[in-house]
Amino acid sequence: MTGSGMVRVAVNGYGVIGKRVADAVFRQLDMVLAGVADVGTDWRLRVATTRGFRVFGATAGHADAMASAGLKISGTLDALLDEVDIVVDCTPKRVAARNVDEYRRRGLKFILQGGESHAVAGHSFVAEANYASAVGRDATRVVSCNTTSIVRTLTALKRSGLLRRARGTLLRRATDPWESHLGGIMNTLVPEPEIPSHQGPDAQSVDPELDVVTMAVKVPETLAHLHYWVVEMTRTASKDEVIEAFAASSRILPVRTDAGLSALNAIKEMMADIGRPHDNLYEVALWTDMLKVEGSELFYAYMVDNQAIVIPETIDAIRALCGTEAVAAASIARTDDALGIGAVTARLQPSGR
Amino acid sequence: MTGSGMVRVAVNGYGVIGKRVADAVFRQLDMVLAGVADVGTDWRLRVATTRGFRVFGATAGHADAMASAGLKISGTLDALLDEVDIVVDCTPKRVAARNVDEYRRRGLKFILQGGESHAVAGHSFVAEANYASAVGRDATRVVSCNTTSIVRTLTALKRSGLLRRARGTLLRRATDPWESHLGGIMNTLVPEPEIPSHQGPDAQSVDPELDVVTMAVKVPETLAHLHYWVVEMTRTASKDEVIEAFAASSRILPVRTDAGLSALNAIKEMMADIGRPHDNLYEVALWTDMLKVEGSELFYAYMVDNQAIVIPETIDAIRALCGTEAVAAASIARTDDALGIGAVTARLQPSGR
Amino acid sequence: MTGSGMVRVAVNGYGVIGKRVADAVFRQLDMVLAGVADVGTDWRLRVATTRGFRVFGATAGHADAMASAGLKISGTLDALLDEVDIVVDCTPKRVAARNVDEYRRRGLKFILQGGESHAVAGHSFVAEANYASAVGRDATRVVSCNTTSIVRTLTALKRSGLLRRARGTLLRRATDPWESHLGGIMNTLVPEPEIPSHQGPDAQSVDPELDVVTMAVKVPETLAHLHYWVVEMTRTASKDEVIEAFAASSRILPVRTDAGLSALNAIKEMMADIGRPHDNLYEVALWTDMLKVEGSELFYAYMVDNQAIVIPETIDAIRALCGTEAVAAASIARTDDALGIGAVTARLQPSGR
Amino acid sequence: MTGSGMVRVAVNGYGVIGKRVADAVFRQLDMVLAGVADVGTDWRLRVATTRGFRVFGATAGHADAMASAGLKISGTLDALLDEVDIVVDCTPKRVAARNVDEYRRRGLKFILQGGESHAVAGHSFVAEANYASAVGRDATRVVSCNTTSIVRTLTALKRSGLLRRARGTLLRRATDPWESHLGGIMNTLVPEPEIPSHQGPDAQSVDPELDVVTMAVKVPETLAHLHYWVVEMTRTASKDEVIEAFAASSRILPVRTDAGLSALNAIKEMMADIGRPHDNLYEVALWTDMLKVEGSELFYAYMVDNQAIVIPETIDAIRALCGTEAVAAASIARTDDALGIGAVTARLQPSGR
Repeated sequence: MTGSGMVRVAVNGYGVIGKRVADAVFRQLDMVLAGVADVGTDWRLRVATTRGFRVFGATAGHADAMASAGLKISGTLDALLDEVDIVVDCTPKRVAARNVDEYRRRGLKFILQGGESHAVAGHSFVAEANYASAVGRDATRVVSCNTTSIVRTLTALKRSGLLRRARGTLLRRATDPWESHLGGIMNTLVPEPEIPSHQGPDAQSVDPELDVVTMAVKVPETLAHLHYWVVEMTRTASKDEVIEAFAASSRILPVRTDAGLSALNAIKEMMADIGRPHDNLYEVALWTDMLKVEGSELFYAYMVDNQAIVIPETIDAIRALCGTEAVAAASIARTDDALGIGAVTARLQPSGR
Repeated sequence: MTGSGMVRVAVNGYGVIGKRVADAVFRQLDMVLAGVADVGTDWRLRVATTRGFRVFGATAGHADAMASAGLKISGTLDALLDEVDIVVDCTPKRVAARNVDEYRRRGLKFILQGGESHAVAGHSFVAEANYASAVGRDATRVVSCNTTSIVRTLTALKRSGLLRRARGTLLRRATDPWESHLGGIMNTLVPEPEIPSHQGPDAQSVDPELDVVTMAVKVPETLAHLHYWVVEMTRTASKDEVIEAFAASSRILPVRTDAGLSALNAIKEMMADIGRPHDNLYEVALWTDMLKVEGSELFYAYMVDNQAIVIPETIDAIRALCGTEAVAAASIARTDDALGIGAVTARLQPSGR
Repeated sequence: MTGSGMVRVAVNGYGVIGKRVADAVFRQLDMVLAGVADVGTDWRLRVATTRGFRVFGATAGHADAMASAGLKISGTLDALLDEVDIVVDCTPKRVAARNVDEYRRRGLKFILQGGESHAVAGHSFVAEANYASAVGRDATRVVSCNTTSIVRTLTALKRSGLLRRARGTLLRRATDPWESHLGGIMNTLVPEPEIPSHQGPDAQSVDPELDVVTMAVKVPETLAHLHYWVVEMTRTASKDEVIEAFAASSRILPVRTDAGLSALNAIKEMMADIGRPHDNLYEVALWTDMLKVEGSELFYAYMVDNQAIVIPETIDAIRALCGTEAVAAASIARTDDALGIGAVTARLQPSGR
Repeated sequence: MTGSGMVRVAVNGYGVIGKRVADAVFRQLDMVLAGVADVGTDWRLRVATTRGFRVFGATAGHADAMASAGLKISGTLDALLDEVDIVVDCTPKRVAARNVDEYRRRGLKFILQGGESHAVAGHSFVAEANYASAVGRDATRVVSCNTTSIVRTLTALKRSGLLRRARGTLLRRATDPWESHLGGIMNTLVPEPEIPSHQGPDAQSVDPELDVVTMAVKVPETLAHLHYWVVEMTRTASKDEVIEAFAASSRILPVRTDAGLSALNAIKEMMADIGRPHDNLYEVALWTDMLKVEGSELFYAYMVDNQAIVIPETIDAIRALCGTEAVAAASIARTDDALGIGAVTARLQPSGR
């Protein structure tokens, strides 16, 4: 840590998640973005340098290639890791698993993303569910976008004593906007060949008590995932009770179709309008007017911005591992404040909610 | 009826459903397509005449306009109705309701499509569920594509004694291919603002005993609907038992992702390959390898070709109302045979099913 | 050739083009489809057998695998080639080039598709442009869908003495419908990185006199290509003259936006309505009301069904190589007749054209 | 004007253009955003108030309805117009034409958007082409996105003495992202029924000397337009000369496919990465590696962000009408600086351009 108690953070991998993590670390008052490491030589890294970020090559070879391409390079990943308290690994699926040996050899704390398996870090993280168990650990895995949304919402129901079991259908965006010229699906729907899909068991890696089963299908759009849920509650409850349960989380954003937020694109546009970088929707956007309670059965749908939802969790995970904040609620509040979660969006709600 | 016992059928409205009904009637050995009526002057009706169909104007004014556009017109709807035993109304939503008075005045049997409400015909029809109750009636309504698929599949489970309750998430194609230049949604998902969606209650208009709740969302593709179901069974059952239950219906086509039928477009292509007109998928295409049983819970997904699935039901409804066939199974077999359902597709299954 | 003078044809490769060629050969009165060869084990070949086509494995290994998968296999490609007068190679890009040695070793006539280079066959074919030069040859290449459309239309202008030079912008469909779950582009446009694109030079492999330059861009739809052209004519001409020039080709289908054929999907639907297998549009569909002449400049747009347009050319190429018909017009007329080109569509035109 | 010489600006209409204009005015050092007027009651205006913008109702009735919906309303459009030096009308097509009478009655300067006809303002504006002619005028019309891009690029060629005539094919995005749930086209292409399309004559409303003809087609994506051009130059020129000609405009951004900017979405992502609000691409993004010169013929393609490209022009038009800056280059530099055009993007270019 710096003399002033600031956590020094490295981001390894500057892709869809890495660039958002770097930006979010940069916005925290108690963290310093020491630098980002990557292997690319294109405009993405060039933009990073124009923002004043220090850029490092993953290896000496990469650093050379990047410098040759005209990028301003500050050295290699090795040098970057020498300077930091923690590294957030945002490299592509399964590359991170290979990096872990080096992190461990150095005794460096590290955070993995949801593409890796639970076993690699030995701990899976969602701030509102199990922050305490990560405090002081060497490593954790911030679970995937879909799983994060599931744990956030079901944890809210569980804490209110309402959750018995949950069955979800997940509509997955086919590819990300920035690479939609390289692949995707067109005018079709592609079911995941296996039922249940992996997100249910993955949620149980954070909270083994959850009784949750999911089915998933790829849909031809790039904006976000959309989940539909049927929940069997422990008892008959009112719609207001359920909405109150969800409202306990600052990271579940209540939205209404009758306020014009009737589709994924409209909600994404609102994020652009309020000035979020990359139009990030950090919250689970849950439609409260659509939500329905019938006896002890609960039905609802929400939107998951797969590029953004894990960013606040990653920031909290940094504080938990580094032990700079022992209390979940305190870290969440700090992260929320720095990213504009909660306060701003609260003012956007129609009075009648 | 003709001297030879053939039912004389008029099709009123030559759109996406009307042209398929006309074609299907044309292929039945016990029916005569007396003619089709419409209001359009464009290529669609011109094609109808090149196929040898007699075309009528909905009114004298329409007949004149159509003749002026160079179409070969055989008269007005009035004249057509004089000649027939039954009319299948395939006019746009809510137009049919206005036509009903005229049909009743004439004492003419009629069939409505699923866009109309149950009350207009007083009876809602799915062949495998309630054929008998339609025999000899004056009118019925063939329920919508989504509802037809729900009743077909749940009836199969019910007959096997396995059905307790069913909860479905329906992914609805945004518009039809032939008019996708006139409207649709792009790179987004649009949830139905109301949960439950109307298909559950609509299924109960055919079978009030069904315990079924649905949620629906519009997706950016034009090919077909896709349903995901969670069913609570009356007891623990094996996967084979469930597949056997569905196999009792000739109109549920078992498909497998591991045989290359892993998405809507692939299944649609198979229909083109086997030479079905308009690549029609008359069956519910249900993935048997994806289907999962966990204790007494059942999970599965299937595809619904919204342009084609109600066509065999409509043909059966003609026989039921006209009383030319009192037994459901006999009518279904005749319809299936004429449309290439069952026999052909059976030969397409990999041996291991 | 058979005793009755029928040409015996093998189709090697049963994909998007191969299955259409097989179907088209099957419909010719002067050809026999001896069989199709492939390497697949899935539903596509199963459908081929249900149609009564003889199916062969590309190698003994493939034949075994296909038989093990439950397909009815008639032997290997080797055996098939023993029986035939000519083989149409529809295997994937660059595989055909390897097959050519075997065809030559056997002294077997062969036809390649447009994915191969001109050099492999030494001749490139478009029926209306250079049928005569292919008569009696050992081999030819039916050029690609885009190039076929260019040569057809520019040949029509050239024969009328109107063509000086042509500049085209080609909007290319991103992938085919049957494999749109495996790849494609989403909510973006992807320009070909090189200007000019390869279609101009490719057209010159058929007719070196053409002065043609093209630019191309991939668009997010699966139905067909769309071309926009600016042509400098040799002189001022009237719109009627130009339309007359195009009308000389039976394979240029005049269509009108004001008759409801205002977009790719509408024209494709018309093909389904008239009962074409796979909704094939064999013709270049050229909008005559949109076409504009300003002095000696000509502007127009047309649609190219990339899955279907080369099918009639392939049939003609069979007759040319085998020498069963020496006159282009006679072969074209026979092919057109068997595929429903010309006669049927003529009746679909509004009187005012 | 305010005592300090700041221009007081009202924005009437807070939609896709209005909100960007308001944001851009807000960022200028020599302008004050007095307020925005609208008729909506939804989240869009609520966001405006959270940004500190004063919001007015278009009429007293609208103001009441907006206040009832919980919006903080500062009065009516009437009151807003009392306070300002100029109004930018961004109301929907043809509504603006009705507002003009009121603006004239008040003697208030006004700017219309490209949806209105040239006649309504009597002047059409593109900063780099005809700024001088707008200085001190009462009104002008900032031409449409497509026309703005055409005039910018052709003006650059004209100033270098290279332009003889230009023929363009315009691929138009089907709808905007924020309303893509309300309409659009799906899996098809929709040609404009008329050739030439209106953009050519519209460009001549700014510069009557341009010899330009365009054809247009709607494509199924929401991001941006894409133009392909064939230009006949006055003489043979080198590729470098042409690139130099375009480089004279700060609002033509040179991009390269070989630097990863190979499609619309990638360029849009770069705008998000550099932190532009709404990922705005204010520039024409022109591919320099794709650009081709053959003798005196020039071929190139560029991207037009239809939501953003007219924003800098609108800012310049404000200065021109109000006479606060008489020199085009000076206004353009000020606007560019405030919006991050030029300086930032220059640093993003690979050294080899």
